[in-house]
Amino acid sequence: MKGIQMKNQRTLFDKIGEKLRLERIATEIRDMSMDNISKTKSGHPGGSLSVTDILTCLYFGRIYNGRKRQLEAVLNYDPCDPLWEGRDRVIMSKGHAAPALYATLARAGFFDCDVLKIYRKIDSPLEGHPAMFQVLKDGKDRGTRGVDFSTGSLGHGFSVAAGVALHAKIYGYDYDVYTILGDGELQEGMPWEACMTIANKGLTRLCAFVDYNHLQVDGSVDEINQLEPLDKKFKAFNWEVKVIDGHDYYQILDVLAYFKLKRSARTKPLMVIANTTKGKGVPEIEGDFTYHALPLTLEQLERASKSFHERIEEIDEEMTKCSPDSVAVTDRVKRPSPVIQEDLREIISRNPSEEYNAPTATRIGYGNCLSRLGEYRRLYVLNADLEGACGTSNFCKKYPERAVNPSDRRSINLGVQECNMMSMAAGIASCGKVPVVNTFGIFSTGRAWEMVRQDISYPRLNVKIIGSHTGLALGEYGVSHQATEDVGVMRCLPNIVVIEPSDAIQADRLFEKVLLYDGPVYYRLGRNPTPLIYVNGNDFGVEPVLDFEIGKGVLLKEGEDWTIIASGPVLCEALKVAQMARESIQVIDMPTIEPVDEALIVKAAMKTKRIATVQDHYKNGGLNDAVLRAIAKHRLHVEFRSIALSGFGESGSPKDLYEKYGLSASKIMEQLGLTPK
Amino acid sequence: MKGIQMKNQRTLFDKIGEKLRLERIATEIRDMSMDNISKTKSGHPGGSLSVTDILTCLYFGRIYNGRKRQLEAVLNYDPCDPLWEGRDRVIMSKGHAAPALYATLARAGFFDCDVLKIYRKIDSPLEGHPAMFQVLKDGKDRGTRGVDFSTGSLGHGFSVAAGVALHAKIYGYDYDVYTILGDGELQEGMPWEACMTIANKGLTRLCAFVDYNHLQVDGSVDEINQLEPLDKKFKAFNWEVKVIDGHDYYQILDVLAYFKLKRSARTKPLMVIANTTKGKGVPEIEGDFTYHALPLTLEQLERASKSFHERIEEIDEEMTKCSPDSVAVTDRVKRPSPVIQEDLREIISRNPSEEYNAPTATRIGYGNCLSRLGEYRRLYVLNADLEGACGTSNFCKKYPERAVNPSDRRSINLGVQECNMMSMAAGIASCGKVPVVNTFGIFSTGRAWEMVRQDISYPRLNVKIIGSHTGLALGEYGVSHQATEDVGVMRCLPNIVVIEPSDAIQADRLFEKVLLYDGPVYYRLGRNPTPLIYVNGNDFGVEPVLDFEIGKGVLLKEGEDWTIIASGPVLCEALKVAQMARESIQVIDMPTIEPVDEALIVKAAMKTKRIATVQDHYKNGGLNDAVLRAIAKHRLHVEFRSIALSGFGESGSPKDLYEKYGLSASKIMEQLGLTPK
Repeated sequence: MKGIQMKNQRTLFDKIGEKLRLERIATEIRDMSMDNISKTKSGHPGGSLSVTDILTCLYFGRIYNGRKRQLEAVLNYDPCDPLWEGRDRVIMSKGHAAPALYATLARAGFFDCDVLKIYRKIDSPLEGHPAMFQVLKDGKDRGTRGVDFSTGSLGHGFSVAAGVALHAKIYGYDYDVYTILGDGELQEGMPWEACMTIANKGLTRLCAFVDYNHLQVDGSVDEINQLEPLDKKFKAFNWEVKVIDGHDYYQILDVLAYFKLKRSARTKPLMVIANTTKGKGVPEIEGDFTYHALPLTLEQLERASKSFHERIEEIDEEMTKCSPDSVAVTDRVKRPSPVIQEDLREIISRNPSEEYNAPTATRIGYGNCLSRLGEYRRLYVLNADLEGACGTSNFCKKYPERAVNPSDRRSINLGVQECNMMSMAAGIASCGKVPVVNTFGIFSTGRAWEMVRQDISYPRLNVKIIGSHTGLALGEYGVSHQATEDVGVMRCLPNIVVIEPSDAIQADRLFEKVLLYDGPVYYRLGRNPTPLIYVNGNDFGVEPVLDFEIGKGVLLKEGEDWTIIASGPVLCEALKVAQMARESIQVIDMPTIEPVDEALIVKAAMKTKRIATVQDHYKNGGLNDAVLRAIAKHRLHVEFRSIALSGFGESGSPKDLYEKYGLSASKIMEQLGLTPK
Repeated sequence: MKGIQMKNQRTLFDKIGEKLRLERIATEIRDMSMDNISKTKSGHPGGSLSVTDILTCLYFGRIYNGRKRQLEAVLNYDPCDPLWEGRDRVIMSKGHAAPALYATLARAGFFDCDVLKIYRKIDSPLEGHPAMFQVLKDGKDRGTRGVDFSTGSLGHGFSVAAGVALHAKIYGYDYDVYTILGDGELQEGMPWEACMTIANKGLTRLCAFVDYNHLQVDGSVDEINQLEPLDKKFKAFNWEVKVIDGHDYYQILDVLAYFKLKRSARTKPLMVIANTTKGKGVPEIEGDFTYHALPLTLEQLERASKSFHERIEEIDEEMTKCSPDSVAVTDRVKRPSPVIQEDLREIISRNPSEEYNAPTATRIGYGNCLSRLGEYRRLYVLNADLEGACGTSNFCKKYPERAVNPSDRRSINLGVQECNMMSMAAGIASCGKVPVVNTFGIFSTGRAWEMVRQDISYPRLNVKIIGSHTGLALGEYGVSHQATEDVGVMRCLPNIVVIEPSDAIQADRLFEKVLLYDGPVYYRLGRNPTPLIYVNGNDFGVEPVLDFEIGKGVLLKEGEDWTIIASGPVLCEALKVAQMARESIQVIDMPTIEPVDEALIVKAAMKTKRIATVQDHYKNGGLNDAVLRAIAKHRLHVEFRSIALSGFGESGSPKDLYEKYGLSASKIMEQLGLTPK
């Protein structure tokens, strides 16, 4: 970093007054962000001030390209086209510094500075923590123009950035990814997952900054749970590390010039540990952790603002001595982005589903669909050390991580990193691709619940979340691996469609629809082979239909006395009940648990007056509750019974477990008071 | 490690045939574990074999104490008293190696070797993944004798071990804690949280082993997401690191002797990177990742077993040349444990609640209770950088992490580490103390959901989980921080009581009951001051009662036309409705959402025939669903309405948000079709 390039850069910058130009902008940003925090009486001044100079250099900084003898903007963006696919991305992992980011974006022209005044107010585009900018199908938009991803929950942004950088590498985009981490969030484990992955997967167009102000909410990072030796940590995670003064524009620009110009020589991603001062620029709060989330009083604000304005006047005076026009400046150029033209419907029609003859696990049905539609280029498959277990092996063999042709590298195995995987997928989806995240249901819905919530459900991103090995039916693995709450915790999240196919054929066919659907889906699958239902000559004497739709149940068998509604392979037990009972039993397959098929429930209620649900799931949160809500909503007067688990299971064979925990056909009969034929 | 001590140890060991003795035991363990996996047709042979020698040295190894000239057992345990408080702990973080652990425990006398045959079978004490041994109140036990904590989900055990080690340090127990990590699980972030914390908090009586067999489910760790330089990583996290051959008994014993005998000289926890071979001892599967979870066939088993037995015969022959009795051996001694004698009821009666006069946040009411009952020595408070925000400051000032008197150090701040905090708390609870875990509701129930599930809900440990800053009522922070699904995701878990107090007084008083209750509780709290209800002269004209019980609702106001049930500060809006409406409205405060007070619901249904719930929570999963279940269960014919959120909120003032999202009194009136007076 101390080569001729940097020396030339600094000499030139001195001449043209670059430092003054940036300081002026940073001062404006500090002024605006303190103003909006204090006037809203809510927000995070300390960390906004510490990160301002880094943001200023990213959005307004320029580097000197000595070879071309010209100044080039650090960040490539177009404030008039905030969703331009080829833009460099900035993921603000420390989302609480939103005021600084908002002021920066306003100053950069993404929106009018007046908008800052409604920060954190109702109906404002400026949320308390950054909300990514999205244009919805109805043409309306939401979030903040210029915000590349929603953040606020610490530790996620690094993984999102990893996903966005991976997207560029796989799909051939020419953009860089920057992320800004707080020091406190490095106490979280999740950033170390990202840290490991970014280096190991060679995502060298990612540059991370640590805004190392040494203070967190409750006090000093060094006292609470310290990070030193931080540079050695990152080095041991195989990053190139630069330690700089995060308030020295030249040091920041030097490191950015190094990142951009020495790209081809670099084999590691770049971590910049930027030593900063919390509250920087407002002397009376500098280094005081209590101002993490405490706005300046209006008196403090007035003093700060006065000092900012005085400094701006001084700068303007000093600037008259510089010659800012003495060097060539290149404009930001909108680099072209790759174009993928393909028609998923056409791909589906060209690749019909295979025939199924024998009992097959639903995970295998899903995996077959994934593989046969693999040519769909937007499809990207993520695994966390359960590639085979989740049924994705065929896809991953066709499109391996180390394929010769880079554009074929449409799968990745991250090892045991469910949280990082989920947020990386969200990053990929934010770029318009269709990531499919694979792991056991307990981990996809549980370990990574908060990642699904913040990074997928909230921005409603098109991520397909696979939960394999679910239910008591998993058998021998035992409680730690039997997901029996997964439907419930996913149903608690807005915007997520929850589907549990009931046999391998449905798992295969319905996944076509899942891919055609634009939005997040949780797809619940089983490990063990289960009987085929949707095949001629099935064991249950029911007529197979093969036209599955999201949100639609299937009336498999008509009856008069009871309607049993089930989803997933436990449906087989319900179908057996219909064969075994003297009573006339109607059976509905309800693969889409959320949103449930209310019309079909209403119809069934009218007919049989008695409804029971059967679920391989804990009593709370599953299909049972979805049906109950529909009953209440439509004010249906029915007798209702729920067959479900009343607690955790244990290890054992699926058959033994179903018998012991009341999910076998005979136990269902007992619980409903039915009489054998 | 190469000092005289170790040399003497090895010389002695050669003489007495210690290596042969251990190898014989390890061979028996390998034989038993392969046998039970293959006969159950399920389990993880590869990782069981790689870890066997480490387990053997822990449970059967002895070290030579040169100063005392005697052999001492590595691990202090009593197979006849598996819950002895003073025992050294072994947390098997890589729980899938259960077969090796089970065979080790059986061999050590915790239970009969015949029990191994029912591994993973129904009604067996040997779960697929280890389940901790517990004696229940009815005298029955569950789990496996000798298993110190339930594991199976990777990455948790390290944090649990940290909690168990912290417990010893705070409460003055004289035990060591060992944990065995897989290499794959180091790809997870959570172990790095524990890694940082254990070193920074000086938990030097913890010794961790990495069973570094370089293979994971899908293949080579080095190819999937590699860990090197692993020693440098741990060193950068401030651990002392030893790299050994994990199949060389002398190297393992040397490191254990170092850990035990050089304790006072050590300032860092000890990490042992044990290079091992997956499948070690069964040549035909050694180094083959496909045998991660694939049992040996019966033919393979026969060959392996034959070779084990041949080796045992050889060893017995070789042993005849040694003189095992030529050195003094100390017996394991049951060191005394500290005794805490205290009566929480008496502490409560001596420390009455303060008076409340003005609107107060429920988090403050809770914090007051925590602080006034602080002398309860079993109480231990954990924070994750939100100590002040969660209302725990007073407690933490009285019992600070750095108190002069070690036994007063009953709080800890881990920084931003919710997952690690939750599992550490579980570790502390497993030792019989009452940890209270504090963070925002979105993190305690969401970020750490899977830790709550595996480490608290499943073993039903006595952890109190605080969720502060919940609901839309949080206001300006916005969606990333507004927990509006927390009740739902906790209700999806068995064994957890979910409570949301409705004002500060109730939050204070009811927390006494929470502490008296032996089991996990989720306690939902609000950030902002809200009106007092349980005070004379309240704004709502209702009579305060102060005798709150877990599981009991409070009929605050009688009425004829509608019953509105609510919990939390949104209850104030329901009470306002009762004041504003021309109709006669009955209002029930339902602080315990799970298990809900069914009797009170039945009574209300009989009376008003119309029930509505109001919740500051997403429509699915909250109080609404709990009440609906009760209605269905008791077959109540009522008109039911749910007032709840239909999606995520946004930033804004709590008042504006309640108005916009339908939770204000006037909006509730509208939704229920009530007429103003």
